[in-house]
Amino acid sequence: MRDALPRRPIAILGSTGSVGVSTLALIERFPERFQAVALAAGRNVARLAEQVTWHAPEVVSVADERAARELHERVPEFTGRVVAGPDGAREVATCARAEVVISALVGALGLAPTLAAVRAGKHVALANKEVLVVAGELVTEVARAHGVALLPVDSEHNAIFQALQGHNRAEVRRVVLTASGGPFLHHDEAALAGVTVADALRHPTWKMGPKITIDSSTLMNKGLEVIEARWLFDLPPEQIDIVIHPQSIVHSMVEYVDGSVIAQMAIPDMTIPIGYALAHPARLPLDYLPSLDLAAAGTLTFQRPDRRRFPCLDLAYRALRAAGTMPAVLNAANEVAVERFLAEDIAYRDIPAVIAAVMDAHEPVPGADLETLLAADRWARAEAGVRAADGSTRRAATAS
Amino acid sequence: MRDALPRRPIAILGSTGSVGVSTLALIERFPERFQAVALAAGRNVARLAEQVTWHAPEVVSVADERAARELHERVPEFTGRVVAGPDGAREVATCARAEVVISALVGALGLAPTLAAVRAGKHVALANKEVLVVAGELVTEVARAHGVALLPVDSEHNAIFQALQGHNRAEVRRVVLTASGGPFLHHDEAALAGVTVADALRHPTWKMGPKITIDSSTLMNKGLEVIEARWLFDLPPEQIDIVIHPQSIVHSMVEYVDGSVIAQMAIPDMTIPIGYALAHPARLPLDYLPSLDLAAAGTLTFQRPDRRRFPCLDLAYRALRAAGTMPAVLNAANEVAVERFLAEDIAYRDIPAVIAAVMDAHEPVPGADLETLLAADRWARAEAGVRAADGSTRRAATAS
Repeated sequence: MRDALPRRPIAILGSTGSVGVSTLALIERFPERFQAVALAAGRNVARLAEQVTWHAPEVVSVADERAARELHERVPEFTGRVVAGPDGAREVATCARAEVVISALVGALGLAPTLAAVRAGKHVALANKEVLVVAGELVTEVARAHGVALLPVDSEHNAIFQALQGHNRAEVRRVVLTASGGPFLHHDEAALAGVTVADALRHPTWKMGPKITIDSSTLMNKGLEVIEARWLFDLPPEQIDIVIHPQSIVHSMVEYVDGSVIAQMAIPDMTIPIGYALAHPARLPLDYLPSLDLAAAGTLTFQRPDRRRFPCLDLAYRALRAAGTMPAVLNAANEVAVERFLAEDIAYRDIPAVIAAVMDAHEPVPGADLETLLAADRWARAEAGVRAADGSTRRAATAS
Repeated sequence: MRDALPRRPIAILGSTGSVGVSTLALIERFPERFQAVALAAGRNVARLAEQVTWHAPEVVSVADERAARELHERVPEFTGRVVAGPDGAREVATCARAEVVISALVGALGLAPTLAAVRAGKHVALANKEVLVVAGELVTEVARAHGVALLPVDSEHNAIFQALQGHNRAEVRRVVLTASGGPFLHHDEAALAGVTVADALRHPTWKMGPKITIDSSTLMNKGLEVIEARWLFDLPPEQIDIVIHPQSIVHSMVEYVDGSVIAQMAIPDMTIPIGYALAHPARLPLDYLPSLDLAAAGTLTFQRPDRRRFPCLDLAYRALRAAGTMPAVLNAANEVAVERFLAEDIAYRDIPAVIAAVMDAHEPVPGADLETLLAADRWARAEAGVRAADGSTRRAATAS
């Protein structure tokens, strides 16, 4: 019976991650609307086995042959294809039956399969930051050429996407991304210099992994979102602003030429933007979530970001203006710097210093293809490693 | 040269009032987009004469023959038609060249010409509350039959109108009108009992006339807007909510079934909603207005309205549920009660008491035509006069 209905066939890149799990939860709740036809995961075979049992996709990809064997052992009755490695993820991304691909693999790993999905004419719901930060120009160009929609999944860009519906793009004055401001919103320079890993891992509003929590505390997270917004909405950096809004209720806004600001608000729950990207242009009746109760929330506050205390913001704008391979370099250097901070190799304030040093050493290549972008990413990682070691060596020498 | 461009021809009912003046200011600023072809005013002939000189409309209407003679004397060179009285206003409303009619006459006076405009197939930008409060069912029915758009001009409904653009009406969970809360937001029952005319005439955010300022303080203004929203957006009373928002920056919101809330925000300046109604579906580049600066605003607060302290809200919902002629009765009784309060004949807390007594005495007529509605309006005015006199007599007796 169910197969007789026109269900939207979905492929998920990163099915065992946070966005993947939330997406499958929505598909389970609305089985008359969606069907998971292809799943790509990494090494979380236990969770993937449950997903495969429930959804019976046509094709599943895992990190490698070992994970593939483990999946066969856990779900011997599964008759769909099991594929492995980068080619496997690409096969999921281009699965003939899929109409929409959820791009939620973490890191640069998601780039090639997402680009393959776009080239295969799939609409892509984007939850992977790197796709647009590293390869925004390339991906949006290919998407335009293939007439596919890029649907933003993260709450800020999804809010802007919603606030643009039904209005004239040519009448946009600017978009305003909201930022929670992170745990150090009220720290002065001295307090920032003393931030520890434990301090930085406390995020006021959203529950997230360590990398994105640190990015949220440095505001680099918002800087990367500015770069994504540039490509998603085809806007120059001057038309992308940031406002600090610690309650994370206004998810972002669009200001139009007449001074009207259209904002999307909601409780902070990723189900809402994921559902919007999945069902677009329809909305899912998410009656089981609590409604936004502004009277209960009481107060919404807004303030300008302090670009001096949070230099990662300006680094992101600088990378965006330099264009070409520079945003890929920014992103890679940031990843390494954050890793080194989490490993307690460098201090919190060294994160922007490392990134800036790597960017200073890079000559951006304009109009880069995927190989060039990934090469810049690799170069920046190596360079950031060296710069971070320089810093920690220097500090060790000073301390001794 | 200018006539060669496709300018939108506008008729204004109430050209010398606040909305009329703001509309003409926009037309003057954007002469390549708009042209004032017909103006209806009352007795402010001095101001009308200036408007006629500047805009050279085809037809102008005034209150009566005396005002018409005065206009001829002030602008002897004017060659357009000058008409007077209710037939004159109707002539402006149905002027063949006008595409959009701005309905901004104050009070029940605006009802007949607005209905005539709708019947003549004109799109109507609505700034006159009575049109929908008194005759919402009738006017929206005629508008549907003639395929004309009703464009809301007041900031709350204009915000909802904007927040509905591009989204699916069937997916609306509710609309939320924001209310400044008026000057007595924090008054308890005892303090409300002692409110004087001078107290009530202080409005925190918008500069308005005495009647609407009192309505804002009793929240009847918001109650009337609930009735308007019911007809403008074809929503049952249960889907129309109110939240107190003293900063008047979020002008209203639409909540959708997925929990997303789309809000329109702007500085409190009527130019923005008037411009949106005039230029719809385009927006005017109002670069000369200050932008909304949320960081400068800092804090937006929200709270539930207290229906016990502000009983006018429930009276409005009650009138809406009773339907037929009851909203007209509510509106008329409120007008008289507010007049009597301004004349210091009755106390502030008598305003809802008078309205409730008049409503109790009324048996609503369903599906009423204009004559029946206007008869109910006249009856309610007389009845409210009696009830107000009863109250003041009673109080005088008690005091003696």
